[in-house]
Formats: sequence, C-alpha cells, structure tokens
Amino acid sequence: MKTSALSKLGQRTDAPPISWLMQLTLDHPRLISLAAGFTDNESLPVEEARELLDEILASPRSGRAALQYGTTAGDPRLRRLTAERLWKLDSAEGTSSSASADDFSHRARNVRDARRPLPVAANEIYSTERMLITSGSQQLLYTLTECLCDPGDIVLVEDPTYFVYLGIVQSHGLCCRGIRLAADGIDLSHLEQTLEALRRRGELKRVKMLYLVSYSQNPTGITTSFVKKAAALATLKRFERAAGHPIYLLEDAAYRELRFAGDDVASALASEGAAERVIYTGTYSKPFATGVRVGFGILPRPLLTVVLRVKANHDFGTSNLLQQLLCRALASCRYERHLPELQRRYARKAATMTRAMREHFPVDVRWQEPCGGLYVWARCPKRVKSGVNSKLFQSALKHDVLYVPGELCYADDRTRRKPNCEMRISFGSATEADIRTGIARLGATLRELL
Amino acid sequence: MKTSALSKLGQRTDAPPISWLMQLTLDHPRLISLAAGFTDNESLPVEEARELLDEILASPRSGRAALQYGTTAGDPRLRRLTAERLWKLDSAEGTSSSASADDFSHRARNVRDARRPLPVAANEIYSTERMLITSGSQQLLYTLTECLCDPGDIVLVEDPTYFVYLGIVQSHGLCCRGIRLAADGIDLSHLEQTLEALRRRGELKRVKMLYLVSYSQNPTGITTSFVKKAAALATLKRFERAAGHPIYLLEDAAYRELRFAGDDVASALASEGAAERVIYTGTYSKPFATGVRVGFGILPRPLLTVVLRVKANHDFGTSNLLQQLLCRALASCRYERHLPELQRRYARKAATMTRAMREHFPVDVRWQEPCGGLYVWARCPKRVKSGVNSKLFQSALKHDVLYVPGELCYADDRTRRKPNCEMRISFGSATEADIRTGIARLGATLRELL
Repeated sequence: MKTSALSKLGQRTDAPPISWLMQLTLDHPRLISLAAGFTDNESLPVEEARELLDEILASPRSGRAALQYGTTAGDPRLRRLTAERLWKLDSAEGTSSSASADDFSHRARNVRDARRPLPVAANEIYSTERMLITSGSQQLLYTLTECLCDPGDIVLVEDPTYFVYLGIVQSHGLCCRGIRLAADGIDLSHLEQTLEALRRRGELKRVKMLYLVSYSQNPTGITTSFVKKAAALATLKRFERAAGHPIYLLEDAAYRELRFAGDDVASALASEGAAERVIYTGTYSKPFATGVRVGFGILPRPLLTVVLRVKANHDFGTSNLLQQLLCRALASCRYERHLPELQRRYARKAATMTRAMREHFPVDVRWQEPCGGLYVWARCPKRVKSGVNSKLFQSALKHDVLYVPGELCYADDRTRRKPNCEMRISFGSATEADIRTGIARLGATLRELL
Repeated sequence: MKTSALSKLGQRTDAPPISWLMQLTLDHPRLISLAAGFTDNESLPVEEARELLDEILASPRSGRAALQYGTTAGDPRLRRLTAERLWKLDSAEGTSSSASADDFSHRARNVRDARRPLPVAANEIYSTERMLITSGSQQLLYTLTECLCDPGDIVLVEDPTYFVYLGIVQSHGLCCRGIRLAADGIDLSHLEQTLEALRRRGELKRVKMLYLVSYSQNPTGITTSFVKKAAALATLKRFERAAGHPIYLLEDAAYRELRFAGDDVASALASEGAAERVIYTGTYSKPFATGVRVGFGILPRPLLTVVLRVKANHDFGTSNLLQQLLCRALASCRYERHLPELQRRYARKAATMTRAMREHFPVDVRWQEPCGGLYVWARCPKRVKSGVNSKLFQSALKHDVLYVPGELCYADDRTRRKPNCEMRISFGSATEADIRTGIARLGATLRELL
C-alpha cells in the first residue's frame, strides 16, 4: 500500500529553496543572511498603519464594513484607486514611454493630468472592471498559471528569473524556455529565435505566456525598457496564428515602487494591443508592508472572468480589513508620502552594499549598481562555482554569511546551460552594519577561493 | 484561432453560484437576502479589533514584527494557542466524546485540565508541528484538494454539503459520491454500501477522502456525533487495503464555535488513528470576523509537508498582521469573551427566524430547530420545486426575498437523485426585522404555491 494518496501535483511539488535557506538561517545563529527577500524592518509604516486602522475601526460603520466579507474581485474603491494610480504612473511625464517616441506610447503621452477624466482608451485599459485584488501578487501568479497552463505547457521566462515563480511552474509540471537578458531587459532576437524554434518543432501550441519581472528584476535588478516590452508583445502576437491561441505577456511589477534611481518606465499596459494580451501584476506588500498581503492585477476581461471563478474557490476574496487599510493609505496620501523615505533608505543600503563589495570583493567579481529593488546580482569568474554544493557556498556558511546561489534562479530548460557562478545578494532586510560585515565575510570567502 | 489559451482547469471551472446570487441582490435593491453566508454585522468585534491592533502597533518591536513577512506555516505562537484551544475543546467535560463511552474517546476523557502538560498521545495529535495557518479555512480546503486529487478522483461528501466546496471539486474535475445524512450525521451503513459498491467496480483506488462539515453543518445545521466520526474513520480504514492508499477524513469545523444550544462534540482528532488520517480544518473568520481571513488546520505530517510546499507557491504565508491580531485576541482572552455574546445573538436570530417560519410557512414545510451555525434547512413537500428556475424561486424574487436553492448543495453524483424541494435560509447577516419580513414574504410565496 502507498503511504500517501497524493495527486500528481502533490507528488511533483518540490520543497521550495526558501525552506532550506530559512533552515540554514536557524541552524547558524550567528549567520548574516543576505539571502532573504524580506524588506527593510525600520522603514515599516508602524505608526501609519496604527493611525489608519484606528480611523477605520473608530466608527462602527467603517469598522463593521472592514470586518465583514467583501467580494471576490476586491473592494471597488481600492480597485479604482489602484487603477488610477497605475494610470498616473504610466502617463506621468518622465516615464520612459514618452521618451521612446514610438507609436505604442501615444496613449501614455496624451494623458498627463490625473485629475482629468480618463480618455477612452486609457479608460478601457486602466479600468476598475479589469482589476482584481489578491493576497499578495504571488496568489495572482499562482491562479493565473493554473488557469492558463496544463502539464507540459511552456512558459517563457527571463534567464534568470524569480525563483518562487519557478516553484509554481515546477509544481504544475510546466516547461520553461529561458530568454537571455540584456541591460535593458530581454534579448528580443533571442525571444524571436526561441519562438521560431518552438514553431518549427510544433511546440508553439503549448506556449501560453512570457513572464517578465520588468522593474528592478528579482534577481538581477534589471529594468526592462518600455520599447522592449512593446516589441516583445508585438513579437508574441506574430506567433499567435501558429500557436492557435493568444500568447500573453505577464508583467510582474512587484518592485516598481522600490526604484531609487533613474526614471519610472511605463508598463506594458501602455503598449498597442495591451487590453487583450497584457496581464499586469503589482503589490502593496513590498512598498508598504510585507505583513499586509495585498496584491493586484489588471487582466484581459475573458481571462479575468476565469481567474475570478478560481479565486472564488481559493478564498472568495482577500481579507477586507487589509484592503480597507490600503484603501485609506492611498486615499489619505499616506501611502504616497511613505514611498520617498523608503526609497531613500534602500538607496542608502544599496550604496553601502556596493561600496563594501568594491572594498572586499576580488576585482574579477562583477555587478551592476542597482537602481531599485532589493538585490545585487554578482557574477564570479566562470571557474568559481556558487551553487549549493560549491566550495564557495559552504565556505560562506562557515564564515556565517548566506546568499542565494544564482543557479536557483534559472529555469530547468534543457536547451540552455544553467550558469552557476552567480549570487543574489539582498540589501533588503539586513541592517547597514550587517551588510558591511556580511559583505566583508563574503569577500574574505571569495578571496580564499580566487 | 481560439479566443483564449485556458488550461483544462480554466476551461472547466464554472461560475460559482454565489456570483449570480450576489448579482440578483444587486439587481433587486429592495431584496431581503436570506441567502448570504455573511455573519452578523452588529456583533463584529470592532472595538476589540481596534484595541488589539493598537496594542500591536504601539510598540515598534511588535509592530514591525506584525508588518513583516512571517513563515509559510504561520506564526508559531498562534499555532500553539490554536492547538491548545482545540485540545481544550476536545477534552472538555461535557463534550460528547466522553458520553460516547467507547474506546476511541479515552484520550479525550483522560485530559481535562488544560493547564496540565499534554499527555503523550494528545501532545502528538494537537501538536504545533502538525498545524498550519491559512487565509481562511477555504484556502486549506483548496490546497488539500489539489494535493490529494487528480481529475477523475472521488471525494465522498455529505448529501447535501457546503456548495463552495463543490465548486473546488468541480473545478478540479473530481467526482463525488453523496452520503445520506441522518439527524446525528452521515448514515454509516450508506457510507459502507457506497465504499463497497466502489470496491466492486474497481473504483476504490480513486477515492481520496470523506469530507464532513461536522458542526452545525452548512447547509442542514446537523452536528455529527463523535461516535459517528470515529466509526466513519474506522470504516474508511477497512477499505484502504483495497484502495491501495490512505483514505482521509477531512473534518471541516467552520461552525464549531457558532453553537448556541447543546454540548460541544469532540472532533475526529480524538478518534483512534486520527494522527495518520484525520485532517481538521477550522477558522477564526466566522466566530471573530469574516473580514479577518485566518483559518487553520491540523494534518497528518506527511500530508502537511506537501501542503506547505504548495502553500509556499500560493502565498508563502498568510498575512502576519492578521495572525498577530488573532494571536493577541486569543492570548488576552478577548476572543474567548467575544464568543458568548455572539452565540446569544445567533440564538436569538435563529429563534426569530423559526418563530416567523411557524407563523408564516404552510404546515407541510418542515425543518429542524438549529443548535448553531447560520442556517435553517427547510424541506417543502416533494411536489414543490425550489430550484433556480422553479416557480417558487422566481416568485420569491418577485416578493423580494432570496434563499439558496437546496439543489445547489448536492454534488453531481450520477448514482443519486438530487432533491430539489429544499431551501437554505440564513439568519446570519439579516437583521431581526429583515428576518421577520423576509420569512413573511417567503411564507406568502409558499402559500400561493401550496
């Protein structure tokens, strides 16, 4: 007799890397973790959250509404405020879509003043009716993937990409094709080549979407330019006839508001044809509070209908209290006022980290200065392996410092080699003192091996 | 070209009945809904939640901890308090397990004083290490089902059962077998017959679990006796060899703390062999606040491992702020103090409803007085159909009153006829005045037809 009665999904699902990374942290009490994706503790909006919740619960009317069930799609006011905010971000002066001077950005260029009524096209794109609220954007990534993909289906991902998304993919028995990354986002000719190769092999019918972590990417910190997003969408479109169905662009904008240098870039929603093909996911967890799991998405309408049905089975709606908290944070502008301080802190911590890296790391370890997000992506010379069983990783552990081995961020793509000489190093949750000490320890480890 | 690229799950998933019930409510502004599963508005703990959150957020230390990510399994203290609470409930004097005087209840009988250390067996059963916290117990029902069941697999359910669970089953392409209900829970001989028939047809290998809503059941209000739960578990066990794998008992105790008459009944966790086969799910949403989605489960360890992996992909943990709120509500006994008032209110509303039913309903409509939960289950004479397209339902709508047609609560089981002359009528969210008016309107509708 079998010892369990698991489904194929249950049998297949691997333990997430995050579990054993956390276990390592627990097993090494002196460890400085530069691995965790936690956010900065000191800038968490404790006082703001206290005031906001106190206001909500001070009146029986708003208090009861917040403590009662809401709807599956989420609070209408929060959806409206979120949609308006996205539209403002995408249409603001200084976003790179207006600088791209191509046809795709006319919508964004034409709508500058958030207080004016939305023009017709933007009204359709940034519509409350196309938006839903989820328990973190992670829940939306999960639900979308199960609504679109059967085992054996193919998702195109950046090479490397967000490793928890790779967990969803693995659990559902999906295949990935990794698309090379350049400094301004995916390599469009590699995207084209990959789709063309899939077409020739008759596998295009299994391709469901391209997943892009488009702002200060986890793990590399790269921000994809608007031009590339629009061009990627156009490329996907050209292969749809051969695929026999839509191929979606799933834009994960989790780190959009953690930018501390450079201009914001318009989202793929500002591209031609976005209403039918772009799925945009964002979150308030990272810019506001990770303990308040509120994410959101804007989806093509037919897909939204299905995702809402499945979300009704998951939880028939995200906690209304958390939604009311965000709603009031947005409406009172306390959310908006919280962001600059947060961005200043991350800028300082990122600078502390890269300064320490310049001081302690051997010269042949390379990285880009981050412009946002939580991570620095460091490349060792190819002869230095960084994987879980590598000398580097084990020796770093002995020096009481932890990083995320780069290989965890690469999809299992049998057509591509997995680099294993990279490290994701986070400046999110560690204090500045721990960042300095952690990098010094990691530097000492690297120098021993190089 | 197809208009969408949906997965089989995406294509299969039906719109949940709750969507069109809500739409009907919106379309009929004067409607009194006796259909919604919402809880009583006036007893929501607005002041308590305000104080608790204020305490949590008054100190940077506890405030930051609450606003930061937690772990996938949930806050250890909340898990411990929840496990202890369950153990207390199951071992309290007056629970019916001690009255059942059979071998299964020795554990519960032997542990009466919650302040004493747990005895060994209870320590294993009600262990923090076997417990996880979820976003409402609904999320756990979903995750469990996807971890255990492939399309074509069979779940045994009560006939009738919780219709949102039937949505999960439908979405995953599963089959159901309905087990008849008696006044004290499922019909054990019908359970045995059903399993035997499945064995003869070689279908037992597809049977993964028996799903019981065991306390003040949704929709019937029936509470399953401890003896029946223990006997059902023993019955499942006898068929495991032929099935070739474990068959779990999934006990959904969502309404356990909404009991307002009679004694509490020990859970199936107090049965022989529970550690390996009983999955217990509960929730703080209904007894505390439905806007605070915190559920929990106790699971056999090998299954918990898999469920945690899948939950890591869903959301890597339920909102920590909500968990801290419940944690403090439990630790400060404000949760405990809130319950009697809540139960008094529901007792009064249930009495108001059944009094109005006696006054306004024709004598050949039958029901049992509820002892807890949110619902009265009314049976019309067989000639009166209650379904969505029935004269009764449409005429009730014209009279501006809404109920849940009984047929929605029956699984699609091709071996069983679906009764369609019943109504689920909720006294949860409607005011007492609306309950009286709503029942008078429904009574008038019934009298017109009878």
